[in-house]
Amino acid sequence: MMKRIAVFTSGGDAPGMNACIRAVVRTAVYHGIEVYGIMRGYSGMIKGEFVKLDSASVANTIQKGGTILKSARSQKFLTKEGRQEAFDQLVNHGIDGLVAIGGNGTFTGATIFEQEFGIPTVGAPGTIDNDLYGTDYTIGYDTAVNTALEAIDKIRDTADSHDRCFFVEVMGRDSGYIAIPCAIGGGAEIVMIPETQMSTEAVIANLKTSWERSKTSFLVVIAEGEEEGNVHAVAQQVKAAIPQLDTRVTIIGHIQRGGSPSASDRMLASQIGIAAVEGLMNGMRNVMAGIVDRKLVYTPFADTIHKKKMINQSFMRMVEILSV
Amino acid sequence: MMKRIAVFTSGGDAPGMNACIRAVVRTAVYHGIEVYGIMRGYSGMIKGEFVKLDSASVANTIQKGGTILKSARSQKFLTKEGRQEAFDQLVNHGIDGLVAIGGNGTFTGATIFEQEFGIPTVGAPGTIDNDLYGTDYTIGYDTAVNTALEAIDKIRDTADSHDRCFFVEVMGRDSGYIAIPCAIGGGAEIVMIPETQMSTEAVIANLKTSWERSKTSFLVVIAEGEEEGNVHAVAQQVKAAIPQLDTRVTIIGHIQRGGSPSASDRMLASQIGIAAVEGLMNGMRNVMAGIVDRKLVYTPFADTIHKKKMINQSFMRMVEILSV
Amino acid sequence: MMKRIAVFTSGGDAPGMNACIRAVVRTAVYHGIEVYGIMRGYSGMIKGEFVKLDSASVANTIQKGGTILKSARSQKFLTKEGRQEAFDQLVNHGIDGLVAIGGNGTFTGATIFEQEFGIPTVGAPGTIDNDLYGTDYTIGYDTAVNTALEAIDKIRDTADSHDRCFFVEVMGRDSGYIAIPCAIGGGAEIVMIPETQMSTEAVIANLKTSWERSKTSFLVVIAEGEEEGNVHAVAQQVKAAIPQLDTRVTIIGHIQRGGSPSASDRMLASQIGIAAVEGLMNGMRNVMAGIVDRKLVYTPFADTIHKKKMINQSFMRMVEILSV
Amino acid sequence: MMKRIAVFTSGGDAPGMNACIRAVVRTAVYHGIEVYGIMRGYSGMIKGEFVKLDSASVANTIQKGGTILKSARSQKFLTKEGRQEAFDQLVNHGIDGLVAIGGNGTFTGATIFEQEFGIPTVGAPGTIDNDLYGTDYTIGYDTAVNTALEAIDKIRDTADSHDRCFFVEVMGRDSGYIAIPCAIGGGAEIVMIPETQMSTEAVIANLKTSWERSKTSFLVVIAEGEEEGNVHAVAQQVKAAIPQLDTRVTIIGHIQRGGSPSASDRMLASQIGIAAVEGLMNGMRNVMAGIVDRKLVYTPFADTIHKKKMINQSFMRMVEILSV
Repeated sequence: MMKRIAVFTSGGDAPGMNACIRAVVRTAVYHGIEVYGIMRGYSGMIKGEFVKLDSASVANTIQKGGTILKSARSQKFLTKEGRQEAFDQLVNHGIDGLVAIGGNGTFTGATIFEQEFGIPTVGAPGTIDNDLYGTDYTIGYDTAVNTALEAIDKIRDTADSHDRCFFVEVMGRDSGYIAIPCAIGGGAEIVMIPETQMSTEAVIANLKTSWERSKTSFLVVIAEGEEEGNVHAVAQQVKAAIPQLDTRVTIIGHIQRGGSPSASDRMLASQIGIAAVEGLMNGMRNVMAGIVDRKLVYTPFADTIHKKKMINQSFMRMVEILSV
Repeated sequence: MMKRIAVFTSGGDAPGMNACIRAVVRTAVYHGIEVYGIMRGYSGMIKGEFVKLDSASVANTIQKGGTILKSARSQKFLTKEGRQEAFDQLVNHGIDGLVAIGGNGTFTGATIFEQEFGIPTVGAPGTIDNDLYGTDYTIGYDTAVNTALEAIDKIRDTADSHDRCFFVEVMGRDSGYIAIPCAIGGGAEIVMIPETQMSTEAVIANLKTSWERSKTSFLVVIAEGEEEGNVHAVAQQVKAAIPQLDTRVTIIGHIQRGGSPSASDRMLASQIGIAAVEGLMNGMRNVMAGIVDRKLVYTPFADTIHKKKMINQSFMRMVEILSV
Repeated sequence: MMKRIAVFTSGGDAPGMNACIRAVVRTAVYHGIEVYGIMRGYSGMIKGEFVKLDSASVANTIQKGGTILKSARSQKFLTKEGRQEAFDQLVNHGIDGLVAIGGNGTFTGATIFEQEFGIPTVGAPGTIDNDLYGTDYTIGYDTAVNTALEAIDKIRDTADSHDRCFFVEVMGRDSGYIAIPCAIGGGAEIVMIPETQMSTEAVIANLKTSWERSKTSFLVVIAEGEEEGNVHAVAQQVKAAIPQLDTRVTIIGHIQRGGSPSASDRMLASQIGIAAVEGLMNGMRNVMAGIVDRKLVYTPFADTIHKKKMINQSFMRMVEILSV
Repeated sequence: MMKRIAVFTSGGDAPGMNACIRAVVRTAVYHGIEVYGIMRGYSGMIKGEFVKLDSASVANTIQKGGTILKSARSQKFLTKEGRQEAFDQLVNHGIDGLVAIGGNGTFTGATIFEQEFGIPTVGAPGTIDNDLYGTDYTIGYDTAVNTALEAIDKIRDTADSHDRCFFVEVMGRDSGYIAIPCAIGGGAEIVMIPETQMSTEAVIANLKTSWERSKTSFLVVIAEGEEEGNVHAVAQQVKAAIPQLDTRVTIIGHIQRGGSPSASDRMLASQIGIAAVEGLMNGMRNVMAGIVDRKLVYTPFADTIHKKKMINQSFMRMVEILSV
């Protein structure tokens, strides 16, 4: 039986992480379980940065962006020695189980840790990328999409005023989950995502056709990683091929990670936070709590890590029809 | 085979209606079908307020609140004579099929109309209330919830600053679909919805207990109809029972119907708009296009009208756990 | 010379109060002065609710609505005994001077207190109402206007979609400072403010003329107090006189007090917070720091209390011209 | 006497341009003057892209970003032949006077045009940069600052969660008007603006000191031009000097030009639009309407072009005090 658990956030921060922490804490309190927060993920676990939490600790946090427990990368947790230190800290603090809010990097660490030391972890999918198998949506995804889309709406104002072609980069190194609703919701002519590998030649051909039909302002949405995109390269090639186009580049960037979570992210984070604690209470370990088709499911970390969540192919057809 | 269709909005307006109109128009254009907009719903159908639409007509509308086709109630369409006039107008304009964006009132009219005159209609669920069987979410619901929740976040600021108890009324005469995420996402202590009929006595008892545990600011979310709520009555009874509480009432009101649609409403409206036109092309009639468990489904109007979409009972337990 | 000061918020809360508290604290730290926060205004002063603050205490607060020091009304401070207790608390905590963030009620209390006990106070104009002589704008005013205007934009969506006449009540019991920019910025046909006392008959006449020119949706903005308006009465009289109008009422309400402060409120609050502390350091007392024509001025409390800041009469003409 | 005037927008678009166009149109209608819109600035003037406008043409535009009259650069207007063609078009359309919404490039063109052909122009300051002599604020400035600040608030969330140092570029090639309130309102540690030419060495020294005082997340705001900034260069030099800092770069970019105008921009744009038309009616020419210390003033184009509006130096001291 669980007497004392700990919760931490790891990996890139996402809106709704605080709502999830709050749900974990209050569910623990509700069930008479003590709960600690671990600062800065595995790094703080090793260093012993533990904070006792109660119901009041998480008051007025559900609407806050970022994570009050902070997040950090830990090289040391990749080593056996580091994990031993982390385990010692957990034992010292009397922790029986963990709730890990993060993505596959976080869950991989938790899996190894459980194999070595037997500490059970239930995961919560906290990442704006939405590319986690085992849940329809990840915590933070809906907010990130809305943030990017609001930025795109503003860009559309200026694109239309100046008859320009804007190339807008949104986050998504490995998937088009953010780019697709941004493109459809932003009224984009074209979307470039990792899954389809549209060539720049195809982009040029499409824009040329539209230009000849006397369309004058354009929006191309491109999914890229956090650090650096090739959006500039695409824009330059297009400009070279269609010199009369007045091209501009905007990278939405890190604002996609921040901001107050949307209603739907607060709901999701709350549901999953409750489910994570009650999962631990029911003896679960090495699983992630998620919502699939509006039902709560627990998916083994092995599956969230190795199975791929496929993007709905019909969305590409939507972009084509809607930009007619 | 469809050669010319018409689209209209009817009933209360909802954010995303324009995104749906846009998708209907562009899908028709994509498939080589002519498309008209009918102004002011059945009222404009009777009066012959038809407007030819093409791809450019709906440019730059996806982000707009309200409905560019306007909406109105029609007493005359409730009479046989009125429907005869409407039919004559459709014949005069050579309309083969209709896309009706609205709720059950709209679909009831379409059903009778089809029985009398044989004009096929496919419906799109456009209402902020989300109480339509045959789709997980209605167009406008996600935006309305986010609008109400942003208002509640602001009210929370002032409630906390003054140690007050706020009674906040959100829309939902017949269901708690809007109230539930507002309560959970807004960190409310209590939610009163039609489905559960919590008594004011229970509210008072709950607040008394919290007050004695020295909680000092409170939020009670109440679902009510558009015109007038009993939120004032509840607040007065609570004040009479716990005089030391500093109570205030806020009715979120009509702002819930307006505003730019959220990403998720734009996606939903676009998917359904495409599906409505392609449904008509495939010979469907008297059905509503919806998304259930992320899959497109067509539900007979008879079912959307007579079957009840039940709210997830686990949500009530969430409010209890999270306000611990 | 000031060694230790205290800051408190009093009266209705306003966005930007935290930005002002932050500026007070950091300016004190910058100048080597100790600083305390007093919780709940004069009430907390009497009860001894003092909290030591440093630079880190106010980190991450500039963007927050409400007031972290909370606000409350104090009957006891209206009595000599209450003020004696407050003075004793200040002496016990070694406080040499006060920064009071609030409105005229707050400054009146500070004036009497200074006369009786000699404790110097410099005031900061913290109120959404903007009706304080001695500053062009009060802290919170710009945010409140933008909040109300965003709500009105949403109402306009639904008013236009349904050809309705909306009566919208915004805050302002004694002045039209909030109503005027809401009316002009919201494209209202009519604005009713305390300063002009437009009769309901005039409203009816205006709407009748517009209706006959076949305008179909209308917006009437009405300034009223926090608790209850006569917006319903006006709407009923209009409906009685022009039955074909589809009228609706919305009270924007308490959301106007909350929310993250606008850029301009953060700037103003920061400037005034710095000026308040430096005013105390320079021996000022019984004055309010304000910005008039972009210059810092200190105005005696006697003037802020007794002089009236007149609204620019040309604004009424603007409403008339712009709704042509 | 003016019988027919025309209005156009030129240069970079700015939020509130539509509110200004609307005010120009309705003021003309109010005074019985006919009014045309010219599409795409001087380019459309030469090509004869004139549109007759009335009160209804500008309904529902006050809240819209961008410019409904579009904007473009015109090489041809820089030539005598181009200006001759523009004049011929004005004569053909019977235009007696012009309202030009834009910045100094626009006003320079208008001045030459008036000298050559005698057509009077009154200007309206429409630019987000706020660097125009003759008005305290330009149309679009307040909105652009709020847009950038909202983005910075989101970045602060993720900076704090990861203990990072963010370098954020906002617009302002020649001045720090946008950067200053973003830095103060965003709680930045450092602001780099053209007016002060702070060296990267000074930035490094400042960050080193803060780091040693164990501050862990930082925000540096940098003003730069639209096209390309040196924000990446600054970030790289800082990273080289303080390798333990986790640095990130974000360029807010073109979103600063878009979006619905703030209340204060709608007021300003409306006041100036009215003043521009009434200025023309009163025989003014080659002047810009502006608001200085809340009073309407007309400033000769020669002064707006050649005099420099100085930034308030006390703002730099504010950044220093507030980041203590």
